[in-house]
Amino acid sequence: MKKIEVLEQLVEALKILPGVGPKSALRLTYFLLQRNRKGAKILSENISNALEQLIHCELCNNFSEEPECSICSSSKRDKNTICVVEMPTDFLMLEETHSYNGLYFILMGRLSPLDGIGPNDIHLSKLVKRIKDSNINEIILATNFTVEGNATAQYIKELFKDIDIETTRIARGLPIGGEIEYVDSGTLAQAIVERKKI
Amino acid sequence: MKKIEVLEQLVEALKILPGVGPKSALRLTYFLLQRNRKGAKILSENISNALEQLIHCELCNNFSEEPECSICSSSKRDKNTICVVEMPTDFLMLEETHSYNGLYFILMGRLSPLDGIGPNDIHLSKLVKRIKDSNINEIILATNFTVEGNATAQYIKELFKDIDIETTRIARGLPIGGEIEYVDSGTLAQAIVERKKI
Repeated sequence: MKKIEVLEQLVEALKILPGVGPKSALRLTYFLLQRNRKGAKILSENISNALEQLIHCELCNNFSEEPECSICSSSKRDKNTICVVEMPTDFLMLEETHSYNGLYFILMGRLSPLDGIGPNDIHLSKLVKRIKDSNINEIILATNFTVEGNATAQYIKELFKDIDIETTRIARGLPIGGEIEYVDSGTLAQAIVERKKI
Repeated sequence: MKKIEVLEQLVEALKILPGVGPKSALRLTYFLLQRNRKGAKILSENISNALEQLIHCELCNNFSEEPECSICSSSKRDKNTICVVEMPTDFLMLEETHSYNGLYFILMGRLSPLDGIGPNDIHLSKLVKRIKDSNINEIILATNFTVEGNATAQYIKELFKDIDIETTRIARGLPIGGEIEYVDSGTLAQAIVERKKI
């Protein structure tokens, strides 16, 4: 049987998505062509629009349609605090909590020597410059609590040890609604070590 | 925080994919924009190409770049047998077995009164016309062994009961390498009922 080239090409293109193998790429292809042609058209256009129109904010690295993103250029945000996160998704999660009103800096990654990701790859010189040029007096390190996230936080703390600036790390402990019976022992140990007076 | 419109639009567009909710749409969006911009561009173009260039074969309903697909127009296929399947993916699976050399007819669905899918929605008049216009002497019903797939097969069988044409159904039984201990009881019961002399 002769292969249908445009169809094969779409299957190949879908395989780039995380978690999509040959079988699901084929399923997705038929889904797009059969069940939701209108949605597929919009998807194609919106991928292309996003690629063309989104740039990185010059100050914080976040995706933005302008050279300076809406948070960096907002007059309502607290300009004395900056929160350092690994990825734009982390930033979004923090914004959703409505518990933070300062600035952000998005590393777009984490230190990971094994993957060849060093300080230059996570825009640290941009972070240093930004902090030196501003009135920031607290850096909140909100990288993940993984080996790499912790190492990244530690590295950034060292970077600023000689200047008069407070570096903090987001808290670890039991989640809201967490039951001691079901929490992992590492988290529980940390919760005991970091216990607070009430 | 002001929403980034092109980004939001891409998240929305990705939500049409089966199994993709708000969270994974966001993850996919950042994946496409950060990790694989080249792949994203190709994906966008290939969706659009497939939508524009693929049509349905006039004879068998399969996706094709020509009015008649490569199987329907091939001189090497057995023109006396037609295999009726629900979806193009089923057709592909059968082709991969290399055990069938006849023609196909793709219903693009199955009878499903609860979902409002009746005989007109699965192109049955096209199937009747095709069979009357040809030398086909066997219809292999290869719809799924689900309630709906079985009902569809039964319905098609009834359609042709007055003309001299053989209708067959693909076999049920234990899969190759199947172990009796682990097979479901319905399949096992069927395997006993349909036992063959050896």
